[in-house]
Amino acid sequence: MDSDFGIPRELSPLQQLRSQYQPELPPCLQGTTVRVEFGDGTTVAEASDSHIIARAFPHTLGQPLAHFLREAAKVSDAHIITQLPSIRVGIVFCGRQAPGGHNVIWGLYEALKVQVHNAKSTLLGFLGGSEGLFAQKTLEITDDTLQTYKNQGGFDLLGRTKDQIKTTEQVNAALKACSDLKLDGLVIIGGVTSNTDAAHLAEFFAEAKCSTKVVGVPVTTNGDLKNQFVEANVGFDTICKVNSQLISNACTDALSAEKYYYFIRLMGRKHSHVALECTLQSHPNMVILGEEVAASKLTIFDISKQICDAVQARAGQDKNHGVILIPEGIIESIPEVYALLKEIHGLLREGVAADKISTQLSPWSSALFEFLPPFIKKQLLLHPESDDSAQLSQIETEKLLAYLVETEMNKRLKEGTYQGKKFNAICHFFGYQARGSLPSKFDCDYAYVLGHICYHILAAGLNGYMATVSNLKSPVNKWKCGAAPITAMMTVKNWSQNASSTSTSIGRPAIHPAMVDLKGKAYELLRQNADKFLMEDLYRNPGPLQYDGPGADAKAMSLCVEDQDYMGRIKQLQEYLDQVRTIVKPGCSQDVLKAALSVMASVTDVLTTISSSSNAGQQFA
Amino acid sequence: MDSDFGIPRELSPLQQLRSQYQPELPPCLQGTTVRVEFGDGTTVAEASDSHIIARAFPHTLGQPLAHFLREAAKVSDAHIITQLPSIRVGIVFCGRQAPGGHNVIWGLYEALKVQVHNAKSTLLGFLGGSEGLFAQKTLEITDDTLQTYKNQGGFDLLGRTKDQIKTTEQVNAALKACSDLKLDGLVIIGGVTSNTDAAHLAEFFAEAKCSTKVVGVPVTTNGDLKNQFVEANVGFDTICKVNSQLISNACTDALSAEKYYYFIRLMGRKHSHVALECTLQSHPNMVILGEEVAASKLTIFDISKQICDAVQARAGQDKNHGVILIPEGIIESIPEVYALLKEIHGLLREGVAADKISTQLSPWSSALFEFLPPFIKKQLLLHPESDDSAQLSQIETEKLLAYLVETEMNKRLKEGTYQGKKFNAICHFFGYQARGSLPSKFDCDYAYVLGHICYHILAAGLNGYMATVSNLKSPVNKWKCGAAPITAMMTVKNWSQNASSTSTSIGRPAIHPAMVDLKGKAYELLRQNADKFLMEDLYRNPGPLQYDGPGADAKAMSLCVEDQDYMGRIKQLQEYLDQVRTIVKPGCSQDVLKAALSVMASVTDVLTTISSSSNAGQQFA
Repeated sequence: MDSDFGIPRELSPLQQLRSQYQPELPPCLQGTTVRVEFGDGTTVAEASDSHIIARAFPHTLGQPLAHFLREAAKVSDAHIITQLPSIRVGIVFCGRQAPGGHNVIWGLYEALKVQVHNAKSTLLGFLGGSEGLFAQKTLEITDDTLQTYKNQGGFDLLGRTKDQIKTTEQVNAALKACSDLKLDGLVIIGGVTSNTDAAHLAEFFAEAKCSTKVVGVPVTTNGDLKNQFVEANVGFDTICKVNSQLISNACTDALSAEKYYYFIRLMGRKHSHVALECTLQSHPNMVILGEEVAASKLTIFDISKQICDAVQARAGQDKNHGVILIPEGIIESIPEVYALLKEIHGLLREGVAADKISTQLSPWSSALFEFLPPFIKKQLLLHPESDDSAQLSQIETEKLLAYLVETEMNKRLKEGTYQGKKFNAICHFFGYQARGSLPSKFDCDYAYVLGHICYHILAAGLNGYMATVSNLKSPVNKWKCGAAPITAMMTVKNWSQNASSTSTSIGRPAIHPAMVDLKGKAYELLRQNADKFLMEDLYRNPGPLQYDGPGADAKAMSLCVEDQDYMGRIKQLQEYLDQVRTIVKPGCSQDVLKAALSVMASVTDVLTTISSSSNAGQQFA
Repeated sequence: MDSDFGIPRELSPLQQLRSQYQPELPPCLQGTTVRVEFGDGTTVAEASDSHIIARAFPHTLGQPLAHFLREAAKVSDAHIITQLPSIRVGIVFCGRQAPGGHNVIWGLYEALKVQVHNAKSTLLGFLGGSEGLFAQKTLEITDDTLQTYKNQGGFDLLGRTKDQIKTTEQVNAALKACSDLKLDGLVIIGGVTSNTDAAHLAEFFAEAKCSTKVVGVPVTTNGDLKNQFVEANVGFDTICKVNSQLISNACTDALSAEKYYYFIRLMGRKHSHVALECTLQSHPNMVILGEEVAASKLTIFDISKQICDAVQARAGQDKNHGVILIPEGIIESIPEVYALLKEIHGLLREGVAADKISTQLSPWSSALFEFLPPFIKKQLLLHPESDDSAQLSQIETEKLLAYLVETEMNKRLKEGTYQGKKFNAICHFFGYQARGSLPSKFDCDYAYVLGHICYHILAAGLNGYMATVSNLKSPVNKWKCGAAPITAMMTVKNWSQNASSTSTSIGRPAIHPAMVDLKGKAYELLRQNADKFLMEDLYRNPGPLQYDGPGADAKAMSLCVEDQDYMGRIKQLQEYLDQVRTIVKPGCSQDVLKAALSVMASVTDVLTTISSSSNAGQQFA
């Protein structure tokens, strides 16, 4: 199979057109000289457990943020001009495929070889994901290899793996590969887990005096690698657009036939980012976010009752159809199901056979388990994933809910409390069919720019950084490029409900997947409209992904409504501080100095208080 | 709910753009005067059981074909110019929704009201499908109603129903509605069943001296309303494009992850047109057409073994992934499963409870039934549809095959005859999520033109006709518009395996769904490439449905490879006959006359022989 990687292939007319699309670069990355501006030297690791992080990352911690600026005429001492040297770089796909991944490679290649015309530079792709890294299976990236993969979906240029770079054996194999291949840099493309691995690998390399620098790139369809530095993940935009297209089609179908309820489960792992975005795009009747379930501690019966009441209310308006979205992660957000899953996983780890587990559960979990229909029982008994979560894509929560709702509606019908038509559900799982899509223009551009940034991070000699772009909701020429130490995104979980876990994750600093912010603007927008969506069938169809004309430049709604430009606002604050410094300098009046001192003392007090309380809060988030 | 029909609604930017798209009209329909040219007066009912058809349709049979031509300067006696009178027309969605349905209404409305500026004409839409027809629930179509439904998917402007217009009660209700509402015409939008109903209704109306003329329009996503007059169905193009997009995404995903086999079942009823077209678009590794299974009398184990051998051969090339398409109708094409289904349906009709059926099956069917996994048992026990077929969308054949293949591969692995990786399948059913899609440009154009034709059929006073367009593979300005008596597409099934059937379909003339032609060019194209598709992963991604740029004007491959212009070729033949007539006229030499007589005598002999044998063959087709 390895011999098939990177071979040219037949493209459809649309694929051909897309392969000729050239993403734009923001001004700061144009030209052959790019200036790197560092933050003011203070560490940016603001994690709640900073002492643990500092202990875990003594060699890479405390590096400042970096921004990339267009080369200016006047260069102050504080700035470093990257020399754009010739370097050898390896790149590897880790974790699940996401549309746009190929463009990271292309962007990096362009920056490395073409933009600086440095033919000596080398880009090696590892074949078959991290396994290829350990086994040193490489493919040199050339113009020819890239030809039929530019702006195309999947990770099939190099192939991927779900394996992590975590065990001592794996980490040593990675070190050996980078040393043997004399790599100056290793770029890891992936999500939360892969970027955590990238940070640990960077630290391990630094400790081992290996000269290879490690860079992470946020590529995941789940959209859960989100924090003050990372506004969006490559692939999320495409996935949401393809899923929204299909959800909208189901809405149109439901409204045409007027006799079904569609229960649609969406891929997206633990959290509900995909479901939230798709709801804002398509306006289905209902969505149940995992974060809401967790915050309100809803039981499976609460959720089913909520849906039944909605069905009944709609029937009262002669509406016997509807569309309900269910994020795949919801099953782990339901407290009693989560407890049951943890018991099952614990028993599986102890080596108890799946068919013996039901007899060894606690009375409470046993009662719940016995109540569930057979297909769900079988799925709950599957072994957990490597990150300890259940195999969410295999658990048909949508069918479970449809089953519970149908049972309850039939009961209500019999009792006479419900007088509508017989309830009918059609279940779907949308995920795999979106994951291999041609990437949207946004994902093409974003991934390509991130690829360019990777080069500049390496050229600046930074280790353990993630490539970042902020102000993404604006056009590309307003995008701000930067790099953030991955450690600044990491926290430590000190406890786990899963006492019997054999995994090493407790106490290990990690990037944790971001939840949907129930105080955020995107969720607020949903809440404002939820009642109307439920009753009024305000279905909206964004249509199939377009590459020309209206809709081609549409961006994710959750990205646009959130006011995210964190780095922009940090910069704005620094400008204020500079202004104060300019006003209050030797020569200013006593009154001005006195006022400034008094004001700044109280500002400092207030901020210190807020900071410590918000840090304390983070531990329990 | 009725009050919600036809209300304006919020459109996404792409929907708005699409709502402004104006489909082109072929030259023959442009201008305010359209000439109708009839065939030469001979009946076109060429059905194999013409005596039964003639008995069933004494009032409407024997009407000639009609073509629509642009008004010419010289009008011969053989031509009638339609007077474009003001008329009252009702329109109803029957059967399952298909993208483009709304444009039939729009096209008819344009022809009726706008093109001839006849404000007195009225177009009434029946609300909620045939039930709305029986109950005389109508909505007058206006510019405003159409505004947000032009070029949009679904049937939600009026709603649809699955109910047929078949029983005496229903037919009488339809007659009463058309009389009460003083309709000059009733347009029925639907597939095979609905157009059959339209023919019977036309006959019934004519017999009852009701002045309402009935017109059928071929709208069905199954693509199985195909014959010499009908090249394509509205909705088929869109469905295949959306499904191909998703299949291609799964291919990309399979190739990126290299560890799954996707088993994808496709909606499309009894026959495999959708699966064939999607295979030609996306190049998955394998497709199993129901027509192949039926022709080769493959058992379920033959099919499963075929897949296992393919998996094993691929593993030999280190390929542990793949994509396999399974048309939903395949389950009824497998001889022993079909026999089992017929037994079950017979028992259900006798009132045997589902949980008692297994004890009353014949020994052979019982053995098969007991062998099947529980989820399939439950699905096979569902009541049949109104056309006597199984509930194909509810039977998870893809899961059954995946289960059989997994069992067999595990066995081979244990025995050592297979040495590849463990076999993993992911199952999908693609259908509902495509059915509500925004229509492709082709479907927008085709439906709009058919709508126009409906008006001209009615204006010409024709009853029991279907609107047709031929030469569809060419650009719109080359399309040939016409009308064919629905009776010419009908045949009679004289026998049925289902002896206990209570349905009235035996001996009733009907349009039968067309099978995939295993001697046709589209299937030949598949066979030529099947081995390469299987082993070489020549995946092709047509991408999401586009409305601008390359791909936007792409047409179905099966439409393009088939050389279908039947009416064009009939016309060509007539030109040859005319030429012979011109050459051999009084005044020509004896030799020419002698030669002509001799040649034409043998031509007539040959054609007579071929015609009678091909008619005989049709009875068993």
